[in-house]
Amino acid sequence: MFYHDNKLQYTVRVDTPDPRFARLLQQAIGGVEGEIRVMLQYLFQAWGNRGPTKYRDMLLETGTEEIGHVEMLATAVALNLEGAPASLQEQAATTNPIVGAIMGGMDPRQYLSAGMAALASDANGVPFDGSHVYASGNIAADMYSNVTAEATGRALACRLFELTDDPGMKDMLRFLIARDTMHQQQWLAVIEELGGHKGVLPIPNSFPDSEQVQDVAYDFFATGIEGVEPPAGRFTSGPSLDGKGEFRLRLAQPMGQEPKLAPPIPQAYAQTEQLLGADAMSADATTSVITTDPDDTK
Amino acid sequence: MFYHDNKLQYTVRVDTPDPRFARLLQQAIGGVEGEIRVMLQYLFQAWGNRGPTKYRDMLLETGTEEIGHVEMLATAVALNLEGAPASLQEQAATTNPIVGAIMGGMDPRQYLSAGMAALASDANGVPFDGSHVYASGNIAADMYSNVTAEATGRALACRLFELTDDPGMKDMLRFLIARDTMHQQQWLAVIEELGGHKGVLPIPNSFPDSEQVQDVAYDFFATGIEGVEPPAGRFTSGPSLDGKGEFRLRLAQPMGQEPKLAPPIPQAYAQTEQLLGADAMSADATTSVITTDPDDTK
Amino acid sequence: MFYHDNKLQYTVRVDTPDPRFARLLQQAIGGVEGEIRVMLQYLFQAWGNRGPTKYRDMLLETGTEEIGHVEMLATAVALNLEGAPASLQEQAATTNPIVGAIMGGMDPRQYLSAGMAALASDANGVPFDGSHVYASGNIAADMYSNVTAEATGRALACRLFELTDDPGMKDMLRFLIARDTMHQQQWLAVIEELGGHKGVLPIPNSFPDSEQVQDVAYDFFATGIEGVEPPAGRFTSGPSLDGKGEFRLRLAQPMGQEPKLAPPIPQAYAQTEQLLGADAMSADATTSVITTDPDDTK
Amino acid sequence: MFYHDNKLQYTVRVDTPDPRFARLLQQAIGGVEGEIRVMLQYLFQAWGNRGPTKYRDMLLETGTEEIGHVEMLATAVALNLEGAPASLQEQAATTNPIVGAIMGGMDPRQYLSAGMAALASDANGVPFDGSHVYASGNIAADMYSNVTAEATGRALACRLFELTDDPGMKDMLRFLIARDTMHQQQWLAVIEELGGHKGVLPIPNSFPDSEQVQDVAYDFFATGIEGVEPPAGRFTSGPSLDGKGEFRLRLAQPMGQEPKLAPPIPQAYAQTEQLLGADAMSADATTSVITTDPDDTK
Amino acid sequence: MFYHDNKLQYTVRVDTPDPRFARLLQQAIGGVEGEIRVMLQYLFQAWGNRGPTKYRDMLLETGTEEIGHVEMLATAVALNLEGAPASLQEQAATTNPIVGAIMGGMDPRQYLSAGMAALASDANGVPFDGSHVYASGNIAADMYSNVTAEATGRALACRLFELTDDPGMKDMLRFLIARDTMHQQQWLAVIEELGGHKGVLPIPNSFPDSEQVQDVAYDFFATGIEGVEPPAGRFTSGPSLDGKGEFRLRLAQPMGQEPKLAPPIPQAYAQTEQLLGADAMSADATTSVITTDPDDTK
Amino acid sequence: MFYHDNKLQYTVRVDTPDPRFARLLQQAIGGVEGEIRVMLQYLFQAWGNRGPTKYRDMLLETGTEEIGHVEMLATAVALNLEGAPASLQEQAATTNPIVGAIMGGMDPRQYLSAGMAALASDANGVPFDGSHVYASGNIAADMYSNVTAEATGRALACRLFELTDDPGMKDMLRFLIARDTMHQQQWLAVIEELGGHKGVLPIPNSFPDSEQVQDVAYDFFATGIEGVEPPAGRFTSGPSLDGKGEFRLRLAQPMGQEPKLAPPIPQAYAQTEQLLGADAMSADATTSVITTDPDDTK
Repeated sequence: MFYHDNKLQYTVRVDTPDPRFARLLQQAIGGVEGEIRVMLQYLFQAWGNRGPTKYRDMLLETGTEEIGHVEMLATAVALNLEGAPASLQEQAATTNPIVGAIMGGMDPRQYLSAGMAALASDANGVPFDGSHVYASGNIAADMYSNVTAEATGRALACRLFELTDDPGMKDMLRFLIARDTMHQQQWLAVIEELGGHKGVLPIPNSFPDSEQVQDVAYDFFATGIEGVEPPAGRFTSGPSLDGKGEFRLRLAQPMGQEPKLAPPIPQAYAQTEQLLGADAMSADATTSVITTDPDDTK
Repeated sequence: MFYHDNKLQYTVRVDTPDPRFARLLQQAIGGVEGEIRVMLQYLFQAWGNRGPTKYRDMLLETGTEEIGHVEMLATAVALNLEGAPASLQEQAATTNPIVGAIMGGMDPRQYLSAGMAALASDANGVPFDGSHVYASGNIAADMYSNVTAEATGRALACRLFELTDDPGMKDMLRFLIARDTMHQQQWLAVIEELGGHKGVLPIPNSFPDSEQVQDVAYDFFATGIEGVEPPAGRFTSGPSLDGKGEFRLRLAQPMGQEPKLAPPIPQAYAQTEQLLGADAMSADATTSVITTDPDDTK
Repeated sequence: MFYHDNKLQYTVRVDTPDPRFARLLQQAIGGVEGEIRVMLQYLFQAWGNRGPTKYRDMLLETGTEEIGHVEMLATAVALNLEGAPASLQEQAATTNPIVGAIMGGMDPRQYLSAGMAALASDANGVPFDGSHVYASGNIAADMYSNVTAEATGRALACRLFELTDDPGMKDMLRFLIARDTMHQQQWLAVIEELGGHKGVLPIPNSFPDSEQVQDVAYDFFATGIEGVEPPAGRFTSGPSLDGKGEFRLRLAQPMGQEPKLAPPIPQAYAQTEQLLGADAMSADATTSVITTDPDDTK
Repeated sequence: MFYHDNKLQYTVRVDTPDPRFARLLQQAIGGVEGEIRVMLQYLFQAWGNRGPTKYRDMLLETGTEEIGHVEMLATAVALNLEGAPASLQEQAATTNPIVGAIMGGMDPRQYLSAGMAALASDANGVPFDGSHVYASGNIAADMYSNVTAEATGRALACRLFELTDDPGMKDMLRFLIARDTMHQQQWLAVIEELGGHKGVLPIPNSFPDSEQVQDVAYDFFATGIEGVEPPAGRFTSGPSLDGKGEFRLRLAQPMGQEPKLAPPIPQAYAQTEQLLGADAMSADATTSVITTDPDDTK
Repeated sequence: MFYHDNKLQYTVRVDTPDPRFARLLQQAIGGVEGEIRVMLQYLFQAWGNRGPTKYRDMLLETGTEEIGHVEMLATAVALNLEGAPASLQEQAATTNPIVGAIMGGMDPRQYLSAGMAALASDANGVPFDGSHVYASGNIAADMYSNVTAEATGRALACRLFELTDDPGMKDMLRFLIARDTMHQQQWLAVIEELGGHKGVLPIPNSFPDSEQVQDVAYDFFATGIEGVEPPAGRFTSGPSLDGKGEFRLRLAQPMGQEPKLAPPIPQAYAQTEQLLGADAMSADATTSVITTDPDDTK
Repeated sequence: MFYHDNKLQYTVRVDTPDPRFARLLQQAIGGVEGEIRVMLQYLFQAWGNRGPTKYRDMLLETGTEEIGHVEMLATAVALNLEGAPASLQEQAATTNPIVGAIMGGMDPRQYLSAGMAALASDANGVPFDGSHVYASGNIAADMYSNVTAEATGRALACRLFELTDDPGMKDMLRFLIARDTMHQQQWLAVIEELGGHKGVLPIPNSFPDSEQVQDVAYDFFATGIEGVEPPAGRFTSGPSLDGKGEFRLRLAQPMGQEPKLAPPIPQAYAQTEQLLGADAMSADATTSVITTDPDDTK
């Protein structure tokens, strides 16, 4: 179960409130790269954890930390919505500072729906969506998912850092950026503990290699038509990362058939002509003249 | 631009149609771990790629391959919906095979909305959602995102493999599982090319280390209350994976203040008492008796 | 900031795992009446609280408790997914217990996406949606919103109580139902502290009465056509609850005009005929014969 | 403004309640082909109508009729949820009829969230989504959108007709199917009034033909690679339907360039290697061996 | 069934069109506090009403009134989009008034998708979502839900009132604000008729008190760690509102166990190490040095 | 399966980058009228096609073309985000060009989430939603759905054409507008091949006419109250379009009963009063005075 105190994990200070920045911070709260997502993701991974409990404990520790990050950001939003900075007022050429702020780029729902506070939404007002809470039951898949969340989350925080000149906001972001550094490390350290590439790949490593079509398991398929040069890299030759195969580059070609579906069943209420088959429809078909001259378009 | 032929990338064969399996396959089409997602994700990463074009080319090759995977799965759904297998009919104790199939676990919209074909939805009928198309503009974040997609995707395919006895379906899944093996390798190979942990971490590696709160960048924060044992692991001591720091374990304590928000502005239409402040509300407050005896609940 | 320990707020015990019940419990986790919603709702109300801090403190206390309720329910889901009860296996007439469980009504994504654990979704697999996190900035509106959440939440818990015979699950629900009882009380107690109906109505009570169209502020409008008897009740006569008016029953009649919109601007790319006006379109209009005989349908 | 009476537009009678059918009916209430959608679509088209008011009036008439169709279907759902039919009970092998009904395919939220009544959702429990309310401001586009809604809606109603043996339900569906017949006619009759294909095409017909790339305005582009036979039909030769061009079949070829994006700006926090360009990344690239033998997979 | 006339319930007049205000009005149409929501909510509550029909009738009356409110607001949006006010044009420094309007804060989809008319979306363009239609089957829960809708709806209307100087728009909002006053009264009057707090609490009042864990049914749980002062109020001491208990304040402590989940089943395709258990993973674990000095961060 | 080359279908050139236009282009990528939708719609229609394969081939050809349209638009977005045009910078009165661009109307997530590239979302940042992929299994319904998509899509492209002065962007849109012209033709040509109105109506034409309530199949129902003039047109008199009936205008009247639902079952946990019936609730009901004087409001 959970406890709280009344202080923030790190100082949140806004020297010059900026309603526009309050909107942008929403991405770090309710966006796909945001803190509600990692909070729920780590907690759900912990709650569903099966196998060694060590990682359950770790996930619970960090999931709990993330609740406090949402708190910091929600506080930052509320503080940025206080006052109506002169610059916005002037630019808006209006005596109503809220109209000016909204016209200047504030999220209107922070006023209309929340009375000047944060929402559980992203920077475009799209509500947080629980389908981004990844907890797959496979520890390696989850660790990579967590690295992704912290990598996109740190990129987001760095970009927010660019968008503000406020010393308080910059200080808060410096803290959050540092925590994302650690959290990236942390999830990758689990991958190391599990043996790195050779230990965890392919994920899941509990499916027998012999059950997959081994012949295509280390082939890079080039799908470009004739004349398109396929890329070359670590992934087109040399030993595979799991040490079990050799990379190859291969031109993609159909190995399958032309699909043939049965005619519609009567209960599907297709058109009668679909039930009758091709002849019913093709009376008008005529021979077409094919043009290939690209200059026709000029 | 794009081209097609009329054949499948790999054979799709259904020996014994099973409408229930048609529902489960939807997760691999429109689910968060599914093929519409990776198709669009790799294509959007390619189309937005900035920097060396080599990875743009690679992403385009594989994104194009994935369109063909959606095609294979959509075909597999349609074939599984053909006929009304005797076992379902019997179990349903009805003469209407579609009613029986739906009662037996088929997605009703595959009939109601699609007339016995695949939908752009997941196994619960939730429509595909474009917010899962991650293309961050940071090549390392994107590669980890792609590994995640292929790791959860391969786990999904393995689980689907468990849920069918149909030799044709098992063969198709063996192929898709093998391709997921390669795709995991492929994205991690890019990380290797970029220098592995030391080269890519922290992501983004273009933000100056000195700008983050360095003192907390390698600390594992333990948020358990007194008596909760923090976990120990590769992430609590020893050198960090990027070679720039040393892991520490640290008990989480507030470094921030108690947040103080301004009273509501009149235009926010809070209740009058909120505008007046605390005294207006607290008349009824009385001293409370605190109970801590956990036996009270027994 | 937040802390945790490793124990549950109340015992979660499953005597006979039932994958179907695991699906139904999802409604209490990620549904609109569920615990993720109240957890985030109370926390966001706390974090955005302006005015007396007493209610901020209260919201933080209870929001933190709710995190532990999500934890209890997620644990309950995981435990219900363990094992494959004989009854389901027999009914499914299959040797694969997972197929049997899914066919018997389990959420397939609990297996396919989570490997036998809870999701941040409802009983139909619809992901949790942050737009249900109500935090309006008006304390009275928020209290009624919280009462609603706890009233629908308690009804949900009671209905879940009907759907299980498992003593452990019934015990857990007895606890959650009791907490919902308290939480309903708690939010209504704030309304009492704020003066009850006379104190809080109309919400927001900070908008001047004189600014609304006072003449319709206490009228029940009957929109039934002639012959439809309007209902009579506390809301059609007698003094209003806020003591400021008298209820009346009134037949609804248009007080407004027939709306007249301007023709489309050329840049809107309506059809040319819309730009030209009515005459361009009405050539075919002919006199219609009106039938009113209801027997025509028989 | 709007009025009601207390009777239904057409008799809704359920002879043998079937909770499974109650779930399927949800598609006709809250699904993309359902009645909430057409109700709102016609009303929004009316309310935003610009140009001749005749169609505004027509849309208002039919939009109002559709509210009554939602009412009929919601009533039908509620009636189907009454009682626990013996057949379901037996099949479920349980003494709890609701558990049996849910296990037999009922929407669990009709009980859990609504206490045995209809929801504003589809047959998979996905909530109605306002983005399906098409009102484009172009009368011809809107009419085709309405035909689509009524065509998919009638197909849905016919499929529901297949899924029930209940005489009352069949009678209600016979009425709704007939109304969909009329509504298809009605929207196409407007297209006729506007001049049919020659009058309305291309939509919008107010954009000057000379402003489009006329040379590709009547060409069917074949995107198949070599060896794929393009289809022939009314759309590959002969005069175009608007009488302004001649259909041609043309092999698709790129008319555009290879896209070149600028390198990332520093503020985008791509990886440093992306900022430095290709050389930083390609050290590991080696010559690849290309395999084209399709037999490799066998 | 339903009827209409061609006039509005109340005059909608726009003296000075303002495309920005057209965007803000969308919140009152398709937002969670908006009129589509209450329209559908009251109608679905009516259509699913079981028990005394008096409230069914009342809900039908008011649900029908709300359709006319959507109509008024949609008309207001369309009128605000007419013309391109000089002030916006100047501010935008452009000769294209639509570009200017969009840059000034208009919803671009009101032009792009609707050709200058209203959408079924909120002020951020998020489509209306049917999951906000609460109809629980419990009359008391529904009444509180309706109060919430009207309280947040009235707060929204008051905030919109602040954001416009247009006399016509202010007049329309004065009417809608007054109707929200009445509707709040109306739903609370039903609570009064049902006996007020003592009559309706706890909701549902049909669940036997003896079945809940009575010992925690009137306890306020304080979840703050040591040193956090719990709040005191009407909800921490004194008789409960339903007259059945006595409020207490209680420090939250775990009454439950540490959760223990079974190891993953093989078919879940966890990593092999998860199947093997803790020892397989913990080789790298070393003793950690714990830092607790908060000054480390300074 | 699918192939690509590295060139665009048509030239994409941006002479003067405009971040605002990059936002508006998103509607054509991820909006309901956009290219991801038609791409997936035509492909899913092809993959689920039953009946004559000619239309499957046609759908595959055009679905593949549409992938290239998404590519063109994504490229156009990326190019419009390059550089920070002087005009925006000046207007924004800031030295940070990204802040200026966002304040000027750019989608903040194109920077925050994508690092200056396109998203799979619409112009308001709402993610693409797979429920708009219509593939009904009925060829006529699908063709009308495709016409709708191309009609609203062409209107969108024309409106975007109005919003830019950039010669490169105008040229690209001229191409896309022309392709939409052809695609409208193409789908309607199939309707012609299928026999036009007389051949395809009513859709589905495989449901026996005799099974619908024939008496209301060609009636226009007028739902206006007394005094509302019903519209007259091609749809109120004369032969129906399918040649099977005669249009009539008819005043809507209830043909159905007043709905009577059973009282709640105890397990639904309605309030006790609902279970007891009407008498329990109506004690307070008193006779109401009805006011009909519309002048009361003045």
